[in-house]
Amino acid sequence: MFALNSNPKLAAEMAKLMGCELGKSSVSQFSDGEIQIHIEESVRGTEVFIIQSTSSPVNENILELLIMIDALKRASAGRINVVIPYYGYGRQDRKARSREPITAKLVADLLEVAGANRVVTMDLHTASIQGFFEIPVEHLIGVPILAQYFMDKQLEDPVVVAPHSGSIGRARKLANLLDAPLALIDRRKNTENNEITVDVLGNVVGKNAIIIDDLIDTGETITLAAKAVAANGAKAIYAGCTHGVFTGDAIYKIEASPIKELVVTNTIQLPKEKESRKVTTISVAPLLVEAIDRIHNEKAVSPLFE
Amino acid sequence: MFALNSNPKLAAEMAKLMGCELGKSSVSQFSDGEIQIHIEESVRGTEVFIIQSTSSPVNENILELLIMIDALKRASAGRINVVIPYYGYGRQDRKARSREPITAKLVADLLEVAGANRVVTMDLHTASIQGFFEIPVEHLIGVPILAQYFMDKQLEDPVVVAPHSGSIGRARKLANLLDAPLALIDRRKNTENNEITVDVLGNVVGKNAIIIDDLIDTGETITLAAKAVAANGAKAIYAGCTHGVFTGDAIYKIEASPIKELVVTNTIQLPKEKESRKVTTISVAPLLVEAIDRIHNEKAVSPLFE
Amino acid sequence: MFALNSNPKLAAEMAKLMGCELGKSSVSQFSDGEIQIHIEESVRGTEVFIIQSTSSPVNENILELLIMIDALKRASAGRINVVIPYYGYGRQDRKARSREPITAKLVADLLEVAGANRVVTMDLHTASIQGFFEIPVEHLIGVPILAQYFMDKQLEDPVVVAPHSGSIGRARKLANLLDAPLALIDRRKNTENNEITVDVLGNVVGKNAIIIDDLIDTGETITLAAKAVAANGAKAIYAGCTHGVFTGDAIYKIEASPIKELVVTNTIQLPKEKESRKVTTISVAPLLVEAIDRIHNEKAVSPLFE
Amino acid sequence: MFALNSNPKLAAEMAKLMGCELGKSSVSQFSDGEIQIHIEESVRGTEVFIIQSTSSPVNENILELLIMIDALKRASAGRINVVIPYYGYGRQDRKARSREPITAKLVADLLEVAGANRVVTMDLHTASIQGFFEIPVEHLIGVPILAQYFMDKQLEDPVVVAPHSGSIGRARKLANLLDAPLALIDRRKNTENNEITVDVLGNVVGKNAIIIDDLIDTGETITLAAKAVAANGAKAIYAGCTHGVFTGDAIYKIEASPIKELVVTNTIQLPKEKESRKVTTISVAPLLVEAIDRIHNEKAVSPLFE
Amino acid sequence: MFALNSNPKLAAEMAKLMGCELGKSSVSQFSDGEIQIHIEESVRGTEVFIIQSTSSPVNENILELLIMIDALKRASAGRINVVIPYYGYGRQDRKARSREPITAKLVADLLEVAGANRVVTMDLHTASIQGFFEIPVEHLIGVPILAQYFMDKQLEDPVVVAPHSGSIGRARKLANLLDAPLALIDRRKNTENNEITVDVLGNVVGKNAIIIDDLIDTGETITLAAKAVAANGAKAIYAGCTHGVFTGDAIYKIEASPIKELVVTNTIQLPKEKESRKVTTISVAPLLVEAIDRIHNEKAVSPLFE
Amino acid sequence: MFALNSNPKLAAEMAKLMGCELGKSSVSQFSDGEIQIHIEESVRGTEVFIIQSTSSPVNENILELLIMIDALKRASAGRINVVIPYYGYGRQDRKARSREPITAKLVADLLEVAGANRVVTMDLHTASIQGFFEIPVEHLIGVPILAQYFMDKQLEDPVVVAPHSGSIGRARKLANLLDAPLALIDRRKNTENNEITVDVLGNVVGKNAIIIDDLIDTGETITLAAKAVAANGAKAIYAGCTHGVFTGDAIYKIEASPIKELVVTNTIQLPKEKESRKVTTISVAPLLVEAIDRIHNEKAVSPLFE
Repeated sequence: MFALNSNPKLAAEMAKLMGCELGKSSVSQFSDGEIQIHIEESVRGTEVFIIQSTSSPVNENILELLIMIDALKRASAGRINVVIPYYGYGRQDRKARSREPITAKLVADLLEVAGANRVVTMDLHTASIQGFFEIPVEHLIGVPILAQYFMDKQLEDPVVVAPHSGSIGRARKLANLLDAPLALIDRRKNTENNEITVDVLGNVVGKNAIIIDDLIDTGETITLAAKAVAANGAKAIYAGCTHGVFTGDAIYKIEASPIKELVVTNTIQLPKEKESRKVTTISVAPLLVEAIDRIHNEKAVSPLFE
Repeated sequence: MFALNSNPKLAAEMAKLMGCELGKSSVSQFSDGEIQIHIEESVRGTEVFIIQSTSSPVNENILELLIMIDALKRASAGRINVVIPYYGYGRQDRKARSREPITAKLVADLLEVAGANRVVTMDLHTASIQGFFEIPVEHLIGVPILAQYFMDKQLEDPVVVAPHSGSIGRARKLANLLDAPLALIDRRKNTENNEITVDVLGNVVGKNAIIIDDLIDTGETITLAAKAVAANGAKAIYAGCTHGVFTGDAIYKIEASPIKELVVTNTIQLPKEKESRKVTTISVAPLLVEAIDRIHNEKAVSPLFE
Repeated sequence: MFALNSNPKLAAEMAKLMGCELGKSSVSQFSDGEIQIHIEESVRGTEVFIIQSTSSPVNENILELLIMIDALKRASAGRINVVIPYYGYGRQDRKARSREPITAKLVADLLEVAGANRVVTMDLHTASIQGFFEIPVEHLIGVPILAQYFMDKQLEDPVVVAPHSGSIGRARKLANLLDAPLALIDRRKNTENNEITVDVLGNVVGKNAIIIDDLIDTGETITLAAKAVAANGAKAIYAGCTHGVFTGDAIYKIEASPIKELVVTNTIQLPKEKESRKVTTISVAPLLVEAIDRIHNEKAVSPLFE
Repeated sequence: MFALNSNPKLAAEMAKLMGCELGKSSVSQFSDGEIQIHIEESVRGTEVFIIQSTSSPVNENILELLIMIDALKRASAGRINVVIPYYGYGRQDRKARSREPITAKLVADLLEVAGANRVVTMDLHTASIQGFFEIPVEHLIGVPILAQYFMDKQLEDPVVVAPHSGSIGRARKLANLLDAPLALIDRRKNTENNEITVDVLGNVVGKNAIIIDDLIDTGETITLAAKAVAANGAKAIYAGCTHGVFTGDAIYKIEASPIKELVVTNTIQLPKEKESRKVTTISVAPLLVEAIDRIHNEKAVSPLFE
Repeated sequence: MFALNSNPKLAAEMAKLMGCELGKSSVSQFSDGEIQIHIEESVRGTEVFIIQSTSSPVNENILELLIMIDALKRASAGRINVVIPYYGYGRQDRKARSREPITAKLVADLLEVAGANRVVTMDLHTASIQGFFEIPVEHLIGVPILAQYFMDKQLEDPVVVAPHSGSIGRARKLANLLDAPLALIDRRKNTENNEITVDVLGNVVGKNAIIIDDLIDTGETITLAAKAVAANGAKAIYAGCTHGVFTGDAIYKIEASPIKELVVTNTIQLPKEKESRKVTTISVAPLLVEAIDRIHNEKAVSPLFE
Repeated sequence: MFALNSNPKLAAEMAKLMGCELGKSSVSQFSDGEIQIHIEESVRGTEVFIIQSTSSPVNENILELLIMIDALKRASAGRINVVIPYYGYGRQDRKARSREPITAKLVADLLEVAGANRVVTMDLHTASIQGFFEIPVEHLIGVPILAQYFMDKQLEDPVVVAPHSGSIGRARKLANLLDAPLALIDRRKNTENNEITVDVLGNVVGKNAIIIDDLIDTGETITLAAKAVAANGAKAIYAGCTHGVFTGDAIYKIEASPIKELVVTNTIQLPKEKESRKVTTISVAPLLVEAIDRIHNEKAVSPLFE
């Protein structure tokens, strides 16, 4: 098991859980920014797991991962498993406008051409990204972890809220697990005055609302949703997501919003300055370790995502 | 331009609009069911368009298309464009459960290995299927055509209804074009008595509801939605979809439902026995012809889908 | 070992011989004809054998096989062996006329792109189809099985007859095994009156003729040959082939012909209504099981076809 | 149009017929046998035809061809057409025994990986070799040229003889063109005394026999056939083949045989010392030039082989 | 012609020389660092040139280039030419130690899988990197430009100095053009005291030394060479290189060194703060424009590098 | 372990060292020069090593190797390791002039498409040829073996001489191991009278010169170097190289030169007539056997080349 630079804390936690040490390799940058990798122990014929989220700095992290795969391939590693807790560029999964790239597919092709034999990832922005690969993809999901957390809280009269139409599938899953009704935030632009109206479809009055998304980036969408839910009479507002991207002043927006508590996993390592007392972090290390263990021992991985 | 067996009417209409004749080829079946194709005129160096929906009988139609591509490739055709108005197996676009295939991706791979150079298609079940291909995909959309039809009807006080969470993106687009609010049908199973509750999120009371989906298969989903919308007080109920798959007794369900009119395009050729006075068919031939014309003359196709 | 829908009897017989159970998988069709496959037990890292003849309905059976391979590949199966007792489309192995496909090669490409790692098959229409594959092909032959059957019959003074020029190689092999002379049926069209003359090259007078072919489709060729052999004074006429395709009224033609007994293997499952008292079926299950066993245990397969 | 070293005479004849000059390139060997190629004029964007039979020295000729293709590809040639009048290794088209290569397929793969875009060839040993390629193959046939020659001779009462079972398809074609009956040479080993019996199936008494094959290598097969035909009472014996491989003392065997005249094409350049007054050479240059012309001008090539 | 972010000045100069405008595209970054590209005019069927040095920030620039290629490919661009004046990661062209990647090859693979059809580049660190590509590579060289500059200076009694063994080929070429002798800097470590000795092989006394390299990175090598040359009695010291990577305090080192003038090309855009009065910049725009013009018009590019 | 025809002595020595027998296979040529290979024992699932230098006759040897790989692949060998002690065509590693092939890359592609899984080789002409492969390459080096030999000789006051600029890297390595200074032979053409001057850069007066190169082909370069070193006052002249190609009268040139002793390895089998009392041969068998052993047992190979 080798860790790259995106999320050393998670990798360390995983290694500890597995009772093994991380593989020895040096990953450095030349003064001109070129990444230099040297694997410091023999990997000939062994099964290798590389842990790397392609989170910010996303381009550095992707190249680092590709170069590592190339080094392992040329060093005759037996099978190269790439564990990508957060798969960056996942939102560029189709041509939204003409003459746009499909970068999520490009990244899949890059991983395959570099020599990856399998991908383990979590909560892809679109589940269809699995189909961008020819190699097997183990697609783990974070909803059960978040559901467990909220169940342990024993919130009364919960309602699960999808902050935009793209997250409604996730919301439905969480609602099923919590046995709760669903609501949807719908934004529309008034064609006359160009004002944006935010509607809440479904009933949230007096309920404990849980807004759920796969990732929070600028924080715009979730805080807008929180305000709408609050304005529509929710009792308290919780939020949950798998990937805490948190760019710009996302954390400040969340702190300033009616959200009482935001639960996020550690697929992306949160820098110190982005910590907040409103944000609770749950670890995905046990889930990933279980997946790795099952893959290595050729046991079914399905119990982890069904 | 060559037509295969799935939708000869549409192909004929397209040829007429283009003022050209369809390519001469014979496509027959041996007595053991093997497809035999012979192209009866030289295609050496020419740009070819094959029209074939991969609708029912889906497996026959896919093989027919693949064999045709192989024949054209080996006959030195210049560039092979595959026009697939309805892309079958589009719903198998991810592993919904473990150990399932991703057949929508498999079909993409089959088309590429056979020798297709470009795909023109309409309203893929998931837009990300574009990314299953390495070759360029022109993804045309039917919502504007449907929107135009409903605008021409000048329905008062419309509301656009997504019959399930997967169609909410389409519903939002139609709602934008019609300047209408949105509603969503949400089905959930009561964990205690296993009864299914159908909720309507959003307000439909006294409105002209338009239920929108990409395709109608068994008719179960849309008629359930229609009943729920009716029960929630809608004034009149319309429905629209691009692909009329209509299997089993779908047409009878629709006729028996509160739906007043269902608008569908001719991407799939409707057999005589499935015609219904409730169903209005709009032709996509002008749209496809315009796309082919632009591709052939290397003009931007983007005006057709933006 | 997984069985698909083309030949469940053969698969069951093979499983019984191997003393194992068939893998659990569900293969069903949606109401629109789309095939849905779900593998119901973990196959991670295991060596898998899929049994599927690509006999009629050939296109369904090919797609079923491809989708199964895709599902197994994505489920991380270790090595995917495809056992195709009868390889359909084998007769489309070259461009007989210009602008025809080479479908036998297309099918080989489809199998490889789907993810097959090895093919086990029997009596390909042309042995060169082996070369259509990059992956190893184990090409088993049925002539020894048929030869054994005829040797056990102790026919006196046999002559082996090739019913057309394409089967002369097989006839020669059988003749060698039976230590018998050879005859060839030659059809030619008289250029003046367009009448077809059927010549028998070689001597069949008073002999027990055995007409041999790789497959019988419409029955036209073999019954014509039988008549010519009878007209040329043969004592009794037997026939043998590996693949009983039997389309249309093939069985009736055979029953009405001078053929006394037709020996065929069970590579293609014969429907009840095509059974005939003239047709004797020999099982290839022991041969296939032996091949699978040798492949799985990495022993030489060559003793089976040399 | 570039000529390599296997058949400069044919290439020169073709260039003359086309009224163009051969492309300037230097093909030399270093003192250690490595081939060095330098293309001496710009080929950027142009359509290129390389003339090279892979006849003896076959390995040199194949490498020379591959290196030339690589040089043209890297020099940005527009489309690389490879004209291989004689395709060597064509007899290794399947695994005759276990653990043999399929070299005819390997050569096809080598040509494609080097960068060939199309192959033009003549009388492949097995027509299925076309299917070894993903790129288009124009498969020209020599039978009509040979048939024309024999028709011009106005032989009375001809019979076409296949010297072994593999050439029976060709013999049937020639017989059709000459409106002649067919005979087949059948060799079999007596299991008791291991003596080989050569039978002539079909009637040759008093006829002008024409023995036809795709190629003559050691001359063993054809002279044996000639003797058997003579022994069975033929009036005069002619022979024809497309490819005169003529290894060892083939020419001497032919001269010593009852063959009156052997007609062969110039797909393989005959060295001076192998000329014989019994051997008539017909040129395929007009046929190849016509094919090249049609390919270059994107007209149908089919009239040349149907 | 499209310019990306690495070297807008060079691209602008090239566009001006060509008398055309740069293609319209927007290349921006999301707040999380993901690159977003949108091509704002139709490129369907047109030949495209992308100008991008993969200089620092090298990983950003590579990803930007790959994503641009993907966007162009999916937008049906006719032929995608990638102009990479400086090819980053060129120094990782082999495994120097075991278990290292060959990143220069990886980048070549990434470019090809993204969809590049041709590469135009300058002074690769090793000429063999051309062979890392399957697609044509036009490899332009900077030595003639530098030679012209030094010839115009009419330096008396010049000697060309290779600052390390890897640059001796380049030095020899420059020496040929200037009709000058050669010298080589050789560094070796004394095994006893680990001190490094810098030898000058060849005579530099009283001469105008010109130190030549393909690139200057930290400036360590070239300034060490300059000191050694000075210590060995050179009259004046000039230096030249194609790629001014100039990381860290390279410029300061050069300013502090005995180098009188350093001539560098603009393949890498020099930031303002790295300008120095000792550094003279020569433009490669005319050379690149000439190459593009020849490629586009399918004329030989060879006059530019022979 | 299978040996082909290029170097049976080395293979036999290796087999003896490993205490195993060489694999049974027959490699013969048909009378027309086509290579015929038959593997005579089962290789199913086993790890295979093929020993073949692609030395003269290089084209025969390459084809022989490719056909062997194809045969092994189709015989289901487990992993095919290709041991190429001398990699021919290594000098064609870049386009030295326009419109030349890069044959070293072509050969790499041919090996991969035939089915090789790993390459073990020695002293490639350019180390970057490793990057021509996608499969792992173990690149062993001969310098330490040669260094050991010269160290054992205890030459006083040695100087290592690079006979041309391309061998300076090797010379530097040997110099490091021997703790010796370096000299370089520089040839330049006088532009006025076209005479060639041979300079010796660095001091050789009174020293024991060791001229080092990767290979000796015509002997021209090394004997010219020897003369120049002698003329510059060297005490005695030794030479060393890994690959003794020795074409033409190379051996006579060496015997006539001031070289006292030439040390060469047995990567290329020296024919009897090219033996010379000046030439000492060292075996690489122990090195190759150690590499094979480590690969087979999945231990690090790096100790062998670092």
